[in-house]
Amino acid sequence: MTRVEIDKNIFKLLEGDTRALSRLITQLDDKEKLPYIIQKVYPRRTDSHVIGITGAPGAGKSTISDKLIKLYRKEGKKVAVIAVDPTSPFSHGAILGDRIRLQNHSTDEKVFIRSMASRGHLGGLAPQTNDTITLMSAAGYDIIFLETVGVGQSEVEIIKFADTVCLLLTPSSGDSVQVMKAGIMEIGDVFVINKSDRPGSDKIEAEIELLWQLNDNKKDFKPQIIKTIANKNKGMNKVKLALAEHFQYMKDSGQLVEKRKQRIENEIMNIVHNSLLEKINARYFDEEVIAKIVDKIYNNNTDPFTIAEKIIERISQ
Amino acid sequence: MTRVEIDKNIFKLLEGDTRALSRLITQLDDKEKLPYIIQKVYPRRTDSHVIGITGAPGAGKSTISDKLIKLYRKEGKKVAVIAVDPTSPFSHGAILGDRIRLQNHSTDEKVFIRSMASRGHLGGLAPQTNDTITLMSAAGYDIIFLETVGVGQSEVEIIKFADTVCLLLTPSSGDSVQVMKAGIMEIGDVFVINKSDRPGSDKIEAEIELLWQLNDNKKDFKPQIIKTIANKNKGMNKVKLALAEHFQYMKDSGQLVEKRKQRIENEIMNIVHNSLLEKINARYFDEEVIAKIVDKIYNNNTDPFTIAEKIIERISQ
Repeated sequence: MTRVEIDKNIFKLLEGDTRALSRLITQLDDKEKLPYIIQKVYPRRTDSHVIGITGAPGAGKSTISDKLIKLYRKEGKKVAVIAVDPTSPFSHGAILGDRIRLQNHSTDEKVFIRSMASRGHLGGLAPQTNDTITLMSAAGYDIIFLETVGVGQSEVEIIKFADTVCLLLTPSSGDSVQVMKAGIMEIGDVFVINKSDRPGSDKIEAEIELLWQLNDNKKDFKPQIIKTIANKNKGMNKVKLALAEHFQYMKDSGQLVEKRKQRIENEIMNIVHNSLLEKINARYFDEEVIAKIVDKIYNNNTDPFTIAEKIIERISQ
Repeated sequence: MTRVEIDKNIFKLLEGDTRALSRLITQLDDKEKLPYIIQKVYPRRTDSHVIGITGAPGAGKSTISDKLIKLYRKEGKKVAVIAVDPTSPFSHGAILGDRIRLQNHSTDEKVFIRSMASRGHLGGLAPQTNDTITLMSAAGYDIIFLETVGVGQSEVEIIKFADTVCLLLTPSSGDSVQVMKAGIMEIGDVFVINKSDRPGSDKIEAEIELLWQLNDNKKDFKPQIIKTIANKNKGMNKVKLALAEHFQYMKDSGQLVEKRKQRIENEIMNIVHNSLLEKINARYFDEEVIAKIVDKIYNNNTDPFTIAEKIIERISQ
């Protein structure tokens, strides 16, 4: 895409054109164009509510997104979804989960859905997530869903981009609750116990309540716990209200500003770090030279730290 | 710990003293001492078999480790375990899973168990994992287990340190299989279907078999699929043999050397990257200056890319 074409697409994006949005998101992969696009779009962000939806596989994230989208659409709100799939560094493609439910909305111009891989490179986890949110915000979406499988750290990192995090649990996912225990209170702003017609949902509710009581760093906002049966459309309005209540609290308390400023700081650092590491790799990690060094280390004639120190010295000169 | 004390502990470590090992692992957190320790210990690594054990929460990782440890101990082998717990960046402590079973071995001097958090900093995932393996190898452990919850990317990254990866599935964890599908063949060298007395274990076996058939980049080693009931001690000897068979294959095919060299290369890059980023953060990210810049960006007077470019220019001068 030429700069003129990018400009044209940005113009359309600001008018809410979904195809322009889609094209520009694709362009974010191009490191030459990324800064140009973001520089132009950044000041045009709107007051989007970025809602993270996370939980173990099978918790019902897609179903809940689907039902919430319907409720927001009834109010005339525009909704965008970023569905982040966990990527294994061993496999190249992203794993496309059961996104089928979300395709219900594929004919609705006011609903935009994008799948994305949580591929990490050089410490940057899903680097396009943040930039995609920027584009969506500039395109005027009222609600931006960020849907991730909330088990690994990459996914948890991504959730940081959300203003409000909706954490999904199910009575059958007892194991996951245990694993997430220590972090669960810091992550979740709204707790949803989905498939709550299954036995054990009261137990989970009691556990979350107990975790809240035991938590030392209590926020002054107590997260709501809502029981839902998403595929029967039960409890979804309550979830919608709880999400809005948290957003309002974030605004009133000044925490939204703080959170967004922190995000800007992280963004600057990420850009600087990634750019520098790329330069360093290109300049100092010549394949042949490295292969020789690795051989020496493998044969115990030196060690990684001694070699690293030498490289750092050379770079610092 | 002074350098003299470190030297004394390294001496004891090389004789197999577990307390010295424990103390030195703790010292790895100290950035000043880390290079000194590793430089001394690195050439003394032995031919340890590093076995990754991964699977969803509740798949039975601890139980399987426990039973395998017993089998190895019967052969007189020394066993070390690194139990990696997922850490959420939101919570400070590591989540200690059900490590209780492993405590069966706490009185056995030839079994060493260490819990560790998969905390990521600057793209370095559990940076001590690799160095801990180096210490354990120098201490003469025949088997080093690396036990992780295999869902997130951090955990998958850690598994890269293993020579052989044993991937655990259970008939009830159908969801997880689906999520891991695309990557599962690249990750697993031995597949264990635990709790195989539950319904559905044949189905999982067929699924793995199918994934193997469909996989485009087939390795020339076909992973074994073993059904176990670990808490009833069923199938454990088969698992042990399969792990050994894979290790032998890795040696004979030359892939072990390749894998270890790749690991050395990654290690050098990680050390260089982390060290440089720390220097840069200390020098260019003054808190007050950054706060002012962030304010400007927040108020749409500039954007993260423009600022990042300026910082990179300053650093590159």
